[in-house]
Amino acid sequence: MMITYTAFKGSNSGQVVETKITHEDVTPTEVLIENLYSGLCGTDAHYKHLDLVLGHEGVGVVKQVGTDVKSLKTGDRVGVGYVRGGCGYCNDCLTGYSWFCQNAPKNYGLQDFESGCFATNTVWPASRLVKIPDSIPSEYAGPLMCAGQTVFLPLARTEVRSWDTVGIVGVGGLGHLAIQFASKMGCNVAVFSGTESKREEAMKLGASEFYTAADLKEGKVRKSFVNHLLVTTSELPDWKVYEPILANQSHIFPLTISMEDFHISALMLVTKEISVHGICASTLTQLNKMLDFAARHKIRPVIEEFPMTKEGITEAFEKLDKGKVRYRAVLKVQHHTNGH
Amino acid sequence: MMITYTAFKGSNSGQVVETKITHEDVTPTEVLIENLYSGLCGTDAHYKHLDLVLGHEGVGVVKQVGTDVKSLKTGDRVGVGYVRGGCGYCNDCLTGYSWFCQNAPKNYGLQDFESGCFATNTVWPASRLVKIPDSIPSEYAGPLMCAGQTVFLPLARTEVRSWDTVGIVGVGGLGHLAIQFASKMGCNVAVFSGTESKREEAMKLGASEFYTAADLKEGKVRKSFVNHLLVTTSELPDWKVYEPILANQSHIFPLTISMEDFHISALMLVTKEISVHGICASTLTQLNKMLDFAARHKIRPVIEEFPMTKEGITEAFEKLDKGKVRYRAVLKVQHHTNGH
Repeated sequence: MMITYTAFKGSNSGQVVETKITHEDVTPTEVLIENLYSGLCGTDAHYKHLDLVLGHEGVGVVKQVGTDVKSLKTGDRVGVGYVRGGCGYCNDCLTGYSWFCQNAPKNYGLQDFESGCFATNTVWPASRLVKIPDSIPSEYAGPLMCAGQTVFLPLARTEVRSWDTVGIVGVGGLGHLAIQFASKMGCNVAVFSGTESKREEAMKLGASEFYTAADLKEGKVRKSFVNHLLVTTSELPDWKVYEPILANQSHIFPLTISMEDFHISALMLVTKEISVHGICASTLTQLNKMLDFAARHKIRPVIEEFPMTKEGITEAFEKLDKGKVRYRAVLKVQHHTNGH
Repeated sequence: MMITYTAFKGSNSGQVVETKITHEDVTPTEVLIENLYSGLCGTDAHYKHLDLVLGHEGVGVVKQVGTDVKSLKTGDRVGVGYVRGGCGYCNDCLTGYSWFCQNAPKNYGLQDFESGCFATNTVWPASRLVKIPDSIPSEYAGPLMCAGQTVFLPLARTEVRSWDTVGIVGVGGLGHLAIQFASKMGCNVAVFSGTESKREEAMKLGASEFYTAADLKEGKVRKSFVNHLLVTTSELPDWKVYEPILANQSHIFPLTISMEDFHISALMLVTKEISVHGICASTLTQLNKMLDFAARHKIRPVIEEFPMTKEGITEAFEKLDKGKVRYRAVLKVQHHTNGH
């Protein structure tokens, strides 16, 4: 039986295109999902000039499972992310890091062009699906699958301790989640934002301290107190202003994709014993831990909802482009419009 | 009782100056050392235009201990390094990282100008002295105190495992020790050098693979296999040629002091999940582990000996400046010339 569904693609002109996808029936290891919501991420904007099904922050309900699937059943609510799988037998796949697979990688925007979450349905390998905890409402689940894991990873992989200070540069789609995760871990959270405008919201989300770009430039921030600096702005900042506030042996995470070089004082790197870490995607185990932690602490993105239609997606992209989304756009799948 | 000894300082003109130092008697927590040898490091060359006692890779014999010193006794052979101490009560001092002390740091070339190892004697706090294991001859001990610890730290602090590949850029004072440490840890050691000239020696020291700059530029080196890259050259390399050989989730250590910015592709940092680490100095525990490991595995610098005289030091600096030292210059203290 062939599967057909409605999907939204990018295009050469950057216009969103509605299309019908016809897909082979699920293989023994795959799952058919009826999508409910998809978050809209800066990476989707990077790819909207390409002929690919957009979206990589999906949440939906399992409609059909392949004959070998034991981890999921019909009716389960699942999350879909940036990574769709790999060969399954290389060292990277065997250890859960399938986005590094060299044999058959399937990463959003790079190899996997027909399976995004801006669609009424998605066919996905069971091995790259996580169950969404019951207490997380569907409209909040999508953004956790990319933005959530992106800010959780630096907190989970390095030695972030609850008595450390976590600095967060930028209060946006990533930053507003990072504040919540770090705060709920018990950390002292220092937020750095362009202007005063987001101070109140940052403090409400869990920040302990809030500084503007002017505070930094004028040397009004105390020295050597930030142990982990998460940079969530879409462009890399001027590192010079952050050097004084970094503690000895602290860690920097440039989290967003930049085509520029990362550059920083080599002398400071050595004398302060700083580490800089690139991080990309999560293993299933890491995703499960992130979702469990988010559920337990009621960590939720602040969302703006748009209908998953050509018009709704276009409007969301426009608002994202202007930096006006507070703080994550979520698209609601319109199942009545496509005959499902 | 005052202590007087001969010492060699830098000077404005860069000429080495012989001088007499008069020092207060040891305090209850200090130790008087009769020096035997001192290594000569690139950092000494950085400082030879300053009016300070040069040298931070010392080895000597304890001649006198302060009344409160319990860790050492007269006749013990000890090593002196870059760090002379701190306030003793801040968090950095309490955890052994006294080179970060903000209250009373005493680091070579920065705050501590009268206590270098280019001298017949040194007065040093017992709390920053290590015993040299009996099996390490004195002439080899000095270079371990700085060059040795500098290459041991990245292998000791991060998760270097014996089945990893350690890449070493540059075969010099640091690199030729790094090859030995990594090799004796059981790692696969890949050496990158400017030309073919050091291939044989690198392989003898324990390298498993050897590549020239030309091999790298021409893409003759296999991809994504280096887990930890130790950069020991005096100038930072062109990272572009190293990008393809770095494994996913690998670590880069720029070990030498550079006044330039460190810069690297931000996209590679994220997609390969690379970490970059600055490291500076060792705790006493780390120094002891390094020396024990070096003793057990007979890791020894390849040295060229010079007399610790104005002429000997000048000659060693000239040879270092020309990149001709194979591989570490060591100065032998001339006790008969100064009346001790």
